[in-house]
Amino acid sequence: MTITATTEYEPLTESTAITLAQDLKFFKEGALLHCREIGDGNLNLVFHIRDENNTGIIIKQALPYAKVVGESWPLTLHRATIEGNYLKNAATLVPNLIPKVYYTNEALAITIMEDLSHLEIVRNGFLEGKNFPLLSKHIGEYLAKTLFYTSDFGLNQQDKKKLQQAFTNPELCKITEDLVFTDPFYESETNDYEPELLGSVEEIWNDAELKLEVAKLKYTFLTNGEALLHGDLHTGSIFASEIDTKVIDPEFAFFGPIGFDVGQFFANILLQAITRDDSQRASIISHLYQVWEGFTFTFSDLWKTESVEHFTQTPGYLDFFLKKVFTDAIGFAGCEVIRRTIGLAHVADLDTIQPYKRKISVKQQALLLGQTLIKNAANIRNIQDVESLLKNEIKGNE
Amino acid sequence: MTITATTEYEPLTESTAITLAQDLKFFKEGALLHCREIGDGNLNLVFHIRDENNTGIIIKQALPYAKVVGESWPLTLHRATIEGNYLKNAATLVPNLIPKVYYTNEALAITIMEDLSHLEIVRNGFLEGKNFPLLSKHIGEYLAKTLFYTSDFGLNQQDKKKLQQAFTNPELCKITEDLVFTDPFYESETNDYEPELLGSVEEIWNDAELKLEVAKLKYTFLTNGEALLHGDLHTGSIFASEIDTKVIDPEFAFFGPIGFDVGQFFANILLQAITRDDSQRASIISHLYQVWEGFTFTFSDLWKTESVEHFTQTPGYLDFFLKKVFTDAIGFAGCEVIRRTIGLAHVADLDTIQPYKRKISVKQQALLLGQTLIKNAANIRNIQDVESLLKNEIKGNE
Repeated sequence: MTITATTEYEPLTESTAITLAQDLKFFKEGALLHCREIGDGNLNLVFHIRDENNTGIIIKQALPYAKVVGESWPLTLHRATIEGNYLKNAATLVPNLIPKVYYTNEALAITIMEDLSHLEIVRNGFLEGKNFPLLSKHIGEYLAKTLFYTSDFGLNQQDKKKLQQAFTNPELCKITEDLVFTDPFYESETNDYEPELLGSVEEIWNDAELKLEVAKLKYTFLTNGEALLHGDLHTGSIFASEIDTKVIDPEFAFFGPIGFDVGQFFANILLQAITRDDSQRASIISHLYQVWEGFTFTFSDLWKTESVEHFTQTPGYLDFFLKKVFTDAIGFAGCEVIRRTIGLAHVADLDTIQPYKRKISVKQQALLLGQTLIKNAANIRNIQDVESLLKNEIKGNE
Repeated sequence: MTITATTEYEPLTESTAITLAQDLKFFKEGALLHCREIGDGNLNLVFHIRDENNTGIIIKQALPYAKVVGESWPLTLHRATIEGNYLKNAATLVPNLIPKVYYTNEALAITIMEDLSHLEIVRNGFLEGKNFPLLSKHIGEYLAKTLFYTSDFGLNQQDKKKLQQAFTNPELCKITEDLVFTDPFYESETNDYEPELLGSVEEIWNDAELKLEVAKLKYTFLTNGEALLHGDLHTGSIFASEIDTKVIDPEFAFFGPIGFDVGQFFANILLQAITRDDSQRASIISHLYQVWEGFTFTFSDLWKTESVEHFTQTPGYLDFFLKKVFTDAIGFAGCEVIRRTIGLAHVADLDTIQPYKRKISVKQQALLLGQTLIKNAANIRNIQDVESLLKNEIKGNE
């Protein structure tokens, strides 16, 4: 019996992954195949299989648990279906900005897709000083198209409700609800920060004004089903080169607030920018300008030319809407900056800073930046304002 | 073969409805049963079956189409399942405020429930000058409990997502999206108004400020899945007496903005209040005060004692939330007042006004009231403000 004929879930090994690739005839008969498991092992197995010509595929398989800080908790395999379905939908909207999906198998929780090993994870590239000049132009287009065409402006409003129903994703949403919007703002076991940060952390826990704004942002995340989000659009979910950009890992996809995807990207750019010297910062900050410009340009164009909603012709509606997305995004970015500094899941941008003393100082700046973004979101009008705030936090702490 | 064993949908007749009741043993064998179809025939068949002791049941069956102004369009039978499931859920929250459900059959699109013929539809009672002294206290409690316990504050947030998935209701939502939030604000074939109102109607169509606010309200309706709404909570969906209140017809149920259910009730009270002489108005207006007071009292109590959400302890959050619900409700009420005046589905409160000249004048007042509610929603702080606006519109047009 071939592996694809089984209906019972079993984790693949490097050897059975090769058998599966052969069963599915991804390679010529007799090809000499090489397989390596390259996942981080926390949530998924990721097998990179290639033949003697270096032609390859990726087999991604969800694990029925999540391993974090040594502990493991059960996690639905259904996320593989969510990921496959998101990529199939996105293939009709932004085919050049995602990996091609070749095969999915719900029982095995498997997605087989394009080998992107000629590209690099953006977060890693940033750490090596690369800047990916087209990254933010591409992500702006990605955000505009994936979000517009799954919103009530770009998709028949009845079809949208059915799509929203299909992308119900409670378990993965809970991870974000807890780790982004709740735990960092309370004394929670999942939090993880250096002892030197305790004072800054307690300030956050005791700031009632901040917590009220976080409460509103969490509620927006819980209730505003505006469009089909990627749901985890940080720089570790994007492969890129000088010319190409590919968004991966949409297993957190669900119908949520448009500003969340935008804000996650903003935040992860800021988390890199805050680590850089003055001389190296402008090239990173330019991604903020370009992604927002790219997003608004394409979204506005689609709004004017492709809308299915009568009211999009109402004067002032587009401006109101973009302002709302921006304000939401700034608040969400603030939450992401804080949780990546003191919450469970850190980013290498901060954690690799040397020496230790500078790492603590930059993390303190990040916490202040996050709080300012959350508390002043409604008054932050544009990316210039964000850049000024960033420079103030950095200067104030030098 | 008994009717309940059939799996193919067929509309009941008075005779087969009796057979069904007998098959299901709702009455003693040999009981002399009397059946009358009492539905308005537009969306559903409603059979009232009773025995010689006047003990009765109601058999409600969805029709596979909607008949409106002579035309008919197909409409999902799934709404019977939505209605049955809503009532089963509500039975755990507000058992005294809804009819008991005895039996449901998805294939036949049937709900068999408690006979409420000892009560009267509130809209009809109002037209006869009745006031139903406990109505708004009960509806305040109904709103608070049904909405809180299906929101992210009162229901496990993962279970809420699954419940939201089950209550996906695109076809019925479309009726509201079109008839409440769109058609009345454009020159649409579905609109229905007296020629004398044309000037007022064109003012609405040409008011860009108004339309921008309606656009935002429609978007809130489309995207904010806050809680399981009744979805059609007007005074024709409520049975009452001096002591009892029962909410019926939740076939429009879906996860939407909490303010919508509140606003529909507000609007239908206002539509009655605006028709009354000064001397008869206070008793109706008191329902606005009582329903909002009852809602906020119970909702606040549940918020403080039953919340599943950490952030509900944050100072200021409850006040912020109730203000948001009120503002949303005022805007939604404005849309409802306008659509019940010039849209497809009118209310007897306005249409039965005599003489014709007074009817036109009251409808003009209603249109102005609706516009004011929509445009000034954010500045209307409480029911006193609403009462003042109502009195201004009436005075201004006398």
